[in-house]
Amino acid sequence: MTVYNIALIGFGGVNRALAELIATKNHLWERDLGFRLNIVAVSDLYLGSVISPNGLDAKTLVEANFEKGGFGQLSGGSAEADNETIIKTAPADIVVEATFTNPKDGEPAVSHCRWALQTGKHVVTTNKGPVAIAAQELKALAKASRLRFEYEGSVMSGTPVIRMVEKTLAGAEVKGFEGILNGTSNFVLGRMEGGLEFASAVREAQQLGYAEADPTADVEGFDVRLKVVILANELLGANLKPEDVSCKGISNLSPTDIEEAAKANSRWKLIGSAVRNADGSVTGSVSPKRLALDHPLAGVNGATNAVSLSTELLGAVTITGPGAGRVETAYALLSDIVAIHAAGASAITKEAA
Amino acid sequence: MTVYNIALIGFGGVNRALAELIATKNHLWERDLGFRLNIVAVSDLYLGSVISPNGLDAKTLVEANFEKGGFGQLSGGSAEADNETIIKTAPADIVVEATFTNPKDGEPAVSHCRWALQTGKHVVTTNKGPVAIAAQELKALAKASRLRFEYEGSVMSGTPVIRMVEKTLAGAEVKGFEGILNGTSNFVLGRMEGGLEFASAVREAQQLGYAEADPTADVEGFDVRLKVVILANELLGANLKPEDVSCKGISNLSPTDIEEAAKANSRWKLIGSAVRNADGSVTGSVSPKRLALDHPLAGVNGATNAVSLSTELLGAVTITGPGAGRVETAYALLSDIVAIHAAGASAITKEAA
Repeated sequence: MTVYNIALIGFGGVNRALAELIATKNHLWERDLGFRLNIVAVSDLYLGSVISPNGLDAKTLVEANFEKGGFGQLSGGSAEADNETIIKTAPADIVVEATFTNPKDGEPAVSHCRWALQTGKHVVTTNKGPVAIAAQELKALAKASRLRFEYEGSVMSGTPVIRMVEKTLAGAEVKGFEGILNGTSNFVLGRMEGGLEFASAVREAQQLGYAEADPTADVEGFDVRLKVVILANELLGANLKPEDVSCKGISNLSPTDIEEAAKANSRWKLIGSAVRNADGSVTGSVSPKRLALDHPLAGVNGATNAVSLSTELLGAVTITGPGAGRVETAYALLSDIVAIHAAGASAITKEAA
Repeated sequence: MTVYNIALIGFGGVNRALAELIATKNHLWERDLGFRLNIVAVSDLYLGSVISPNGLDAKTLVEANFEKGGFGQLSGGSAEADNETIIKTAPADIVVEATFTNPKDGEPAVSHCRWALQTGKHVVTTNKGPVAIAAQELKALAKASRLRFEYEGSVMSGTPVIRMVEKTLAGAEVKGFEGILNGTSNFVLGRMEGGLEFASAVREAQQLGYAEADPTADVEGFDVRLKVVILANELLGANLKPEDVSCKGISNLSPTDIEEAAKANSRWKLIGSAVRNADGSVTGSVSPKRLALDHPLAGVNGATNAVSLSTELLGAVTITGPGAGRVETAYALLSDIVAIHAAGASAITKEAA
């Protein structure tokens, strides 16, 4: 039985959900996936950090109601979150990076990934920042050390798109894509179709917990822009930076715009897209688009995300699924670890207990 | 450079499209996929058969307008289609089975696959018959000889679903699926929504080449039933036979049914589905269902196919794409060969020319 020792960087919703899954699913994964996961370190800005070479009990970790600095009470724990030390010294095979996304320079997540790869650890992350901003450097670093840098969850939580193209569409020749890549803005557009003005729809999204106090990144397209960069670079072999992608959000759409679209059997969606041009260059953009109701993305409603790939041999192939959610995003991390396992990457093999 | 020698069994639309792709794409596949394909044998009931150890020119094969028995004119050719000899003796790494589907016992395609695996050749096929009826035997045979039996194209042509679940959703725990798996019946339903009666809609489908002279397999759900068997056995670990799956087609739907659905913001779709029951057994069915317009499959129109997977960790994940087409189905064969290549299966390695 293979056991992967993992270090969780960040213990917010996503990594906490992964710990919950470990607590309940490890026996199933042993049987079905051929490995189980053992949490040997956790670091979190609020809770502190802890290294436990034999492993922390996932159930205890999830159920204990730690206060600020609470990891300091644990054996091997500290009230401070010393991410650098944890990442560099924890006896982990895989570092699971799930801290906040910084859209400017990707830090400190880029450093987290770099430290892990420099000290011989695979990295799995759901964090858009390091992937959109530093994927080339981090992939090169991983390759040089025969490690994996996996980030399926950086685009549509656990809904596979990067790995789907890599593993199931090789040779189909992806020429471009269009996606609904932000559930919050998609929810807002749906409520505007229901008759609300933009500001009221945003307030409702905030009340329901779909939108943050500052909804700018969601409704102005900045979140989608990072995802377009990631997909364009992965699926189309581009080398885009966020500032290369034109970006327009939905805040200027009026009730009149929405009504006129409906009259013309169409509806507005915030579309992130990229296309390979005749000269081989790739152009990415984020913009509201009026889609005919029979467009593959027109029926994607609420918090659901979707990417429609334009391919040479298959025409349009569309994948639709959750774009967010604690468990859904934690699953992306699991799927990344499954990929590491399938690649036969080096691992500490132990006898099953 | 890896070269896979392939034998084409059947030279109708699909294998002819594969030969066309080989003629135009081999150089691209060398660069992007790491292999090229070399046709060393072809057998076809109408045209005859031919073995050419050094390889047949794909372009010539496609462009020559062979008459009945025409392969007899070729060096190493015969006017007769001796599939057994071709499959057993051709110097092929991979047998590409694309003959007609026999829904009763899967023959002669089952024998084609068996002969290939017994003589050390991988099998790729788009043929539902052998997969729905003899997958267990053929998979065991392949496994025993460390060969691959691949059949992505048996369900939705090149749109990945079997491999998508295997490669990108491991651990997500698929609990069931619903699919639109027959483009002809879906087209007919669409035309009935446009006001036609069933019989007129079928006639239109026939005139457009979407439906065969005898449309029974498409409109009565028998085609979908084979696909439900394949997916249930693959994705849910079932061991269903076609007769285990209840089957009802669309021929009894009346214009009134269609109108009433529309009034209730819903529409009829022919749905193939399977679900794992609490006791672990799997129930499959084919039946027209009235879907609410916001159902993930309600917007799948015309010849497009889709499967919506119900998963424990991700909820619904839906893949939508072409369900038929010569090139689209030939791509499925290519994707199977990509999978064989990725698995590092044995191959004849030659220096690139």
